[in-house]
Amino acid sequence: GQQCGLVSSTRAAQSRSLACFTSTVSGLKAEDDGMEELATEKEAEESHRQDSVNLLTFILLLTLTILTIWLFKHRRVRFLHETGLAMIYGLLVGVILRYGIPATSYHNKTPPSCSLKEGPASTLLLNVSGKFFEYTLKGEINSREIHNVEQNDMLRKVTFDPEVFFNILLPPIIFHAGYSLKKRHFFRNLGSIITYAFLGTAISCFVIGNLMYGVVKLMQVVGQLTDKFYYTDCLFFGAVISATDPVTVLAIFNELHADGDLYALLFGESVMNDAVAIVLSSSIVAYQPSGTNTHMFDASAFFKSVGVFLGIFSGSFVMGAATGVVTALISFFDFTKLHCFPLLETALFFLMSWSTFLLAEACGFTGVVAVLFCGITQAHYTYNNLSEESTKRTKQLFEVLHFLAENFIFSYMGLALFTFQNHIFSPIFIIGAFIAIFIGRAFNIYPLSFLLNLGRRHKIKGNFQHMMMFAGLRGAMAFALAIRDTATYARQMMFTTTLLIVFFTVWVFGGGTTAMLSWLHIRVGVDPDQDLQPCGDSFQSKTKQESAWLFRLWYTFDHNYLKPILTHSGPPLTSTLPSYCGPLASCLTSPQAYENHEQLRDHDSDLIRNDSDLTYTFGDTAITANGASGSGGDGAGGSGWSVNGKRSGSTSEEALERELDSREQELLSRGTRLVFPIEDHV
Amino acid sequence: GQQCGLVSSTRAAQSRSLACFTSTVSGLKAEDDGMEELATEKEAEESHRQDSVNLLTFILLLTLTILTIWLFKHRRVRFLHETGLAMIYGLLVGVILRYGIPATSYHNKTPPSCSLKEGPASTLLLNVSGKFFEYTLKGEINSREIHNVEQNDMLRKVTFDPEVFFNILLPPIIFHAGYSLKKRHFFRNLGSIITYAFLGTAISCFVIGNLMYGVVKLMQVVGQLTDKFYYTDCLFFGAVISATDPVTVLAIFNELHADGDLYALLFGESVMNDAVAIVLSSSIVAYQPSGTNTHMFDASAFFKSVGVFLGIFSGSFVMGAATGVVTALISFFDFTKLHCFPLLETALFFLMSWSTFLLAEACGFTGVVAVLFCGITQAHYTYNNLSEESTKRTKQLFEVLHFLAENFIFSYMGLALFTFQNHIFSPIFIIGAFIAIFIGRAFNIYPLSFLLNLGRRHKIKGNFQHMMMFAGLRGAMAFALAIRDTATYARQMMFTTTLLIVFFTVWVFGGGTTAMLSWLHIRVGVDPDQDLQPCGDSFQSKTKQESAWLFRLWYTFDHNYLKPILTHSGPPLTSTLPSYCGPLASCLTSPQAYENHEQLRDHDSDLIRNDSDLTYTFGDTAITANGASGSGGDGAGGSGWSVNGKRSGSTSEEALERELDSREQELLSRGTRLVFPIEDHV
Repeated sequence: GQQCGLVSSTRAAQSRSLACFTSTVSGLKAEDDGMEELATEKEAEESHRQDSVNLLTFILLLTLTILTIWLFKHRRVRFLHETGLAMIYGLLVGVILRYGIPATSYHNKTPPSCSLKEGPASTLLLNVSGKFFEYTLKGEINSREIHNVEQNDMLRKVTFDPEVFFNILLPPIIFHAGYSLKKRHFFRNLGSIITYAFLGTAISCFVIGNLMYGVVKLMQVVGQLTDKFYYTDCLFFGAVISATDPVTVLAIFNELHADGDLYALLFGESVMNDAVAIVLSSSIVAYQPSGTNTHMFDASAFFKSVGVFLGIFSGSFVMGAATGVVTALISFFDFTKLHCFPLLETALFFLMSWSTFLLAEACGFTGVVAVLFCGITQAHYTYNNLSEESTKRTKQLFEVLHFLAENFIFSYMGLALFTFQNHIFSPIFIIGAFIAIFIGRAFNIYPLSFLLNLGRRHKIKGNFQHMMMFAGLRGAMAFALAIRDTATYARQMMFTTTLLIVFFTVWVFGGGTTAMLSWLHIRVGVDPDQDLQPCGDSFQSKTKQESAWLFRLWYTFDHNYLKPILTHSGPPLTSTLPSYCGPLASCLTSPQAYENHEQLRDHDSDLIRNDSDLTYTFGDTAITANGASGSGGDGAGGSGWSVNGKRSGSTSEEALERELDSREQELLSRGTRLVFPIEDHV
Repeated sequence: GQQCGLVSSTRAAQSRSLACFTSTVSGLKAEDDGMEELATEKEAEESHRQDSVNLLTFILLLTLTILTIWLFKHRRVRFLHETGLAMIYGLLVGVILRYGIPATSYHNKTPPSCSLKEGPASTLLLNVSGKFFEYTLKGEINSREIHNVEQNDMLRKVTFDPEVFFNILLPPIIFHAGYSLKKRHFFRNLGSIITYAFLGTAISCFVIGNLMYGVVKLMQVVGQLTDKFYYTDCLFFGAVISATDPVTVLAIFNELHADGDLYALLFGESVMNDAVAIVLSSSIVAYQPSGTNTHMFDASAFFKSVGVFLGIFSGSFVMGAATGVVTALISFFDFTKLHCFPLLETALFFLMSWSTFLLAEACGFTGVVAVLFCGITQAHYTYNNLSEESTKRTKQLFEVLHFLAENFIFSYMGLALFTFQNHIFSPIFIIGAFIAIFIGRAFNIYPLSFLLNLGRRHKIKGNFQHMMMFAGLRGAMAFALAIRDTATYARQMMFTTTLLIVFFTVWVFGGGTTAMLSWLHIRVGVDPDQDLQPCGDSFQSKTKQESAWLFRLWYTFDHNYLKPILTHSGPPLTSTLPSYCGPLASCLTSPQAYENHEQLRDHDSDLIRNDSDLTYTFGDTAITANGASGSGGDGAGGSGWSVNGKRSGSTSEEALERELDSREQELLSRGTRLVFPIEDHV
């Protein structure tokens, strides 16, 4: 693990940032009295200072961003999101670094060189008059650049190891996203979200990949292509650029309290498709056809890639979910005393999440994906077991980490436009890419929405589809995937293009969100807790809208078996398991569950918070979780938990419906007024 | 910044961990189609997995530690602190790694070697049939070990870069310590703390250094010394081992609510002497006499070292305090709106603290010291400006970071005993060191206490002195300083010895704290808010105990001028500045200050919380900050803030005194009972 600056392909690159943590000092029994006086000492000191200055630059950038956001929030400016702002500051600093500082270097000489017949090994020994020195491989270097190795050190210095993005900055962002998914709306739209994320991303990847291959062919014809650019490269670009990140749009949605379902669709899709895109890109890299016709279609290699995709994805998923469940169990079994030590609880929670990432990486899976599903699982189960104090602490801890990491990535993007030294700006490729991502997004959203609407009772309406089309911004994940490997001509061109696409979409689409919301007549100002989706259809038709069998099945299983085992909420197992499982059930049920069952007000589960709502939602699977149903059970019998039982009194439903309709009118009128609001509801 | 595994002396080593963050990938326009197929790829993948496994080991260790602490806290076990526990787990894992896993290596061959006439440069080019590869220097290697370079990779892998301790793990620990210093008791004992920390550490360093030089000479005589060991090395050891860290003792003090003054003395001393030790060790490294007689005394070099010490220390101090003040000002000027965005506030606070560290490092000062004083300043000023929400968040964030970092260091120490490969166990040196640190501590505590007692009205009593002597544990800072450079024979021997001293003191002294408290009859069970220090002397003699002119001067200046300018607490400037400064004063005073002045109950300043207490404490400088004095001012006049005015009614003092005396009796009786308590007061 010593190759801190090694350039090569994905896996090799991946080894770096962790390698930097576990370095290898002790093994060398050095007698370096002689070395201490070397120029290395001075250089190292200089380099250390330089490193501090670089990091300081970023910290100050972030500080500046925060101060400005503050001002913006204070003045209620909404056309520029903090991430967009961070990019602008990054750009400014990049310009200063590039053009403002004279390119002096502290020594200009070409480094000493030596020749060997064998290929490069990772470790090389240098014999200087009997003394041996150990050297590590940093990477291949173009013969033209030999004399510049030290010269462009200044700009190279502000270039972070790409794996820092993957191993340090992305995990908190992704985990936080997963952790925030604990929303009723998310689970209600799970089917659609999964469809968009998996099928949609795959479609987008292939559409973009093929279109870009056309663009590349065109470039070849007009002589704009100076190096190799394979079909697999195009597909890789498709995967990279298919990771959407509508952070700007979602922030505005959040602030304006836009429609919950649309929010859930967009947020869920963007979180899940990050995972899909990252695994997809790994699979495409793994696609190596045998024989002469490399980089063209080969069935066996293709299926191998598909296998890699499924293997990595399901492995990471299982690993993440498993760790989440383990956390839930740990926090479950110690439930009485853990609450007294919120610091320990928070620390444990943090460590378990991090170990998921490391475990997945250690097993060859994708840590980021594992962390995502760990976050979702923890939000669903562990969260319910934590003390209120810990819940708050954990949330805040990840909030701060997520905030810092996100703004760091975006300000780095701005910086990279000027400080990255191997940009390849190809106008044809860039224009082609802009058109391709537009078409790719359209092929993702519209056909899939049409198909989903066939199955959904609660259709995804036209204006929602347009909004989803519009919200296909690119962000942190696309950037991290693109910067991961910038060794070849093709990858460098992709990186430059990705950067420009991120800038454009974040600034233009992000800035235009409020205008678009108003233009598409999407309601805002919805109180999330009261949002029962009276979307204009008649109420009866909606009652079955989410009764997709998959969701129903999952919900029943989760609510009756998993929740009682893993958390203190949900009904006691004694009431949900068949009677012959009685002893087992009472052994697994926590005493608190009975109490909860008595109270029947489960304050931390969003899924069953608005119980009366759920009663309607499931239509024929009415899980009457509310005491208001009048049949509150008292422990063993579980008469209140009438799964598969119908709910009788429809008169009360009609009354509620009328009430809701009138409220919705109010919300709608408030909503349209609020597209450019005076913000009187904050 | 590419030398991720370079072994050399302090500064060179320092460049590593930051260098790992800002790596240098983009500069290389590589055409590495050829490289992708290399064995490097496989190796890198393997190495990446190995790295993940290593980090995972630590994370699981920490998790285990946390789970056990939990159990301990639950069972109220007090003989083993979490840090001691972390070390034990570390030891166990170390044993497994060392002896449990067969020392297979994935390839055993000697790396290729090439010869050059010139000395080693930091960058080397390798020419393999026309292709150039860049290599970076990792360090000198003993000719005996050439064949083992790859072999002991396994154990080398779990060895962290020492600079990780300095640049990543220590800052949160130190910052948190500084941040927690905001205690009335600390400021009341400031003079004594500074004396112990500066004079005491210097005494300890020289006493230990000289004693160890004697030990080294003895070893030379009996033929136990196999390599060079200079006088400066001995002094360096003295500086390293003078950094005390009574974390275990303080945890128990905290839990048992032991005497506040003793706590403040111990905590303050340990925090400050970390800073002194780190700068002292740098100064000793900087001590390089000219001429032939190197490593012996040289006046000019000595004064240069003293200059370095003063320069680094004061530079770091000023930098830290300045950043703290800047944070205070930022949070002061935006006081109205900042409170609405606690996330931004916390992030800003975090970034400013980190930038202090980086700024100091960039300027060649000591980041850790700067962070310490930044923490103290922020605790004193910024803290008062933060919203309640932010205050809590910030505190919790640093608490978690501090907790994780501390336990990580201690579990790593346990691990290092078996996995570090260059231990030199020298029984004579180790026994000598144990005796030397005992003597050094005695020369620090007893003479200084005697001198301080000449000036203090409230004497540091014998049992307090013994307790301070006993609480001279060594911990994270000594370890971090010792592992920073383990290149030479002398340094390796020091590292081994330091490790053993830390183990011994943490386990034995840490474990014996409760017994010692009871044996020395030190009172516990003191309510910190009610602790008015009626320590057996007559009350009158105590009233002047803290009226040290330095403290009085500082307090007056701080309270009347700094606090009003930097925070919203304290009196309005209009009442403290002379009348001719009127316009300036009213311009600098925040509107809130007037309100506070009205209320006269400043809830977040510990210094003036127990105002009635302060009235007595200052005797002739009675700052009557409590409305109970009957002369509550109403804004401009400031009649309530009668600096240098005497307080009249002594009858009420006597009444209070009697009351306090009786309460003290109660506390004392409760206290002795509580040394092995049933914990009825928690």
